[in-house]
Amino acid sequence: MIRARTPSAAVPRARKGEETRAQILEAAVQQASEAGFESITIGALAQRTGLSKSGLFAHFGSRSDLQVAVLDEAARRFAETVFLPAMKAPRGLPRLRAIVGRFIGWTESAGLNGGCPILAAGIEFDDIAGPMREAVAGYQRQRGRELARAVQLAVDTGELAADTDPRQFVFELDGIALAYYHAARLVGDDQARNRALAAFERLVASYSPPLSPSAAARR
Amino acid sequence: MIRARTPSAAVPRARKGEETRAQILEAAVQQASEAGFESITIGALAQRTGLSKSGLFAHFGSRSDLQVAVLDEAARRFAETVFLPAMKAPRGLPRLRAIVGRFIGWTESAGLNGGCPILAAGIEFDDIAGPMREAVAGYQRQRGRELARAVQLAVDTGELAADTDPRQFVFELDGIALAYYHAARLVGDDQARNRALAAFERLVASYSPPLSPSAAARR
Repeated sequence: MIRARTPSAAVPRARKGEETRAQILEAAVQQASEAGFESITIGALAQRTGLSKSGLFAHFGSRSDLQVAVLDEAARRFAETVFLPAMKAPRGLPRLRAIVGRFIGWTESAGLNGGCPILAAGIEFDDIAGPMREAVAGYQRQRGRELARAVQLAVDTGELAADTDPRQFVFELDGIALAYYHAARLVGDDQARNRALAAFERLVASYSPPLSPSAAARR
Repeated sequence: MIRARTPSAAVPRARKGEETRAQILEAAVQQASEAGFESITIGALAQRTGLSKSGLFAHFGSRSDLQVAVLDEAARRFAETVFLPAMKAPRGLPRLRAIVGRFIGWTESAGLNGGCPILAAGIEFDDIAGPMREAVAGYQRQRGRELARAVQLAVDTGELAADTDPRQFVFELDGIALAYYHAARLVGDDQARNRALAAFERLVASYSPPLSPSAAARR
């Protein structure tokens, strides 16, 4: 068999390489979603993709490189599923509501079969110094800043009280998202989404600006 | 060397077996706290305890048996650290506050070096049917019932509003505890405990009974 080594054949081959890499990442993100990053092994991915173990090795240098690439892919999907579409909503409470509505249960919208891979990575690597801990902490801080900015915009529009501490608000919002995953995925509470949205509305109400004297008098 | 097989020597030997088992469990709970249940391997435990691998095998049948035993031990410590001492506080809000104050950061009080093993088990096994999923979901449901009972007592004393839904309250409380772990352990927020306690007081305030007409008039 003659192997094509001409430049014209190199392009499709490079494209095929990218496709295979994307296929591996897809399988690995699903694996992380279902059973965590520690469960991403060459054997597990070979089974999911039907690729040979040597073929898998060729695409990712070390296991750590692969884990970070999977986390990057999960973060890209999170941004694509949660933040980007919510940016179309008007700034202030409507945008914050759009973010939260997409944040709660984003993995289902993103086609993942299990829990949130970023959350799983946080739990797995919080005590293990190294590139994964750095990467996941970086994504969490970035998400915290983006959420805090959305909260601040709702303060600026006057929909949240002027003395709202955006970081405290985001802390409590993170709690709601975490409680949702916990209740929905582990305890099997079929009311988890409703509980999470009710908790968010309660949070918004507790940070609402005090009624103006005239509005209070009309009550 | 003559092996003592008399009843008088059997007692210390059984006791030694119990001590070794306790030593293995202690090492395994630390391992789960630091890096999750998937990381509990015979090799890792041999390194932590200094015991031989064959000695370790003798104490626990399967890896799954060991994982469940470690979870049971973590749950026992949780009850001992959080619920049992809080029961001394008067029923109602004081007891609920005592539970929450001990719940936030209980692993440090229990001498664990990493995160909450029960939380880690929940994230790891929520998509993996089997004895670990059953065990951790069982513990989470039990804790939910115990927290809901403490909330209901604070409704009964009139410290929380009569229409408080204890399950919704517990959902939001779980979120605060989860956000604490997330912020403290992963993002390295040194204000995490203060944020968690502030979030709890905000939660209590939002579930407070409406002011009686006379109390409102005095404002």
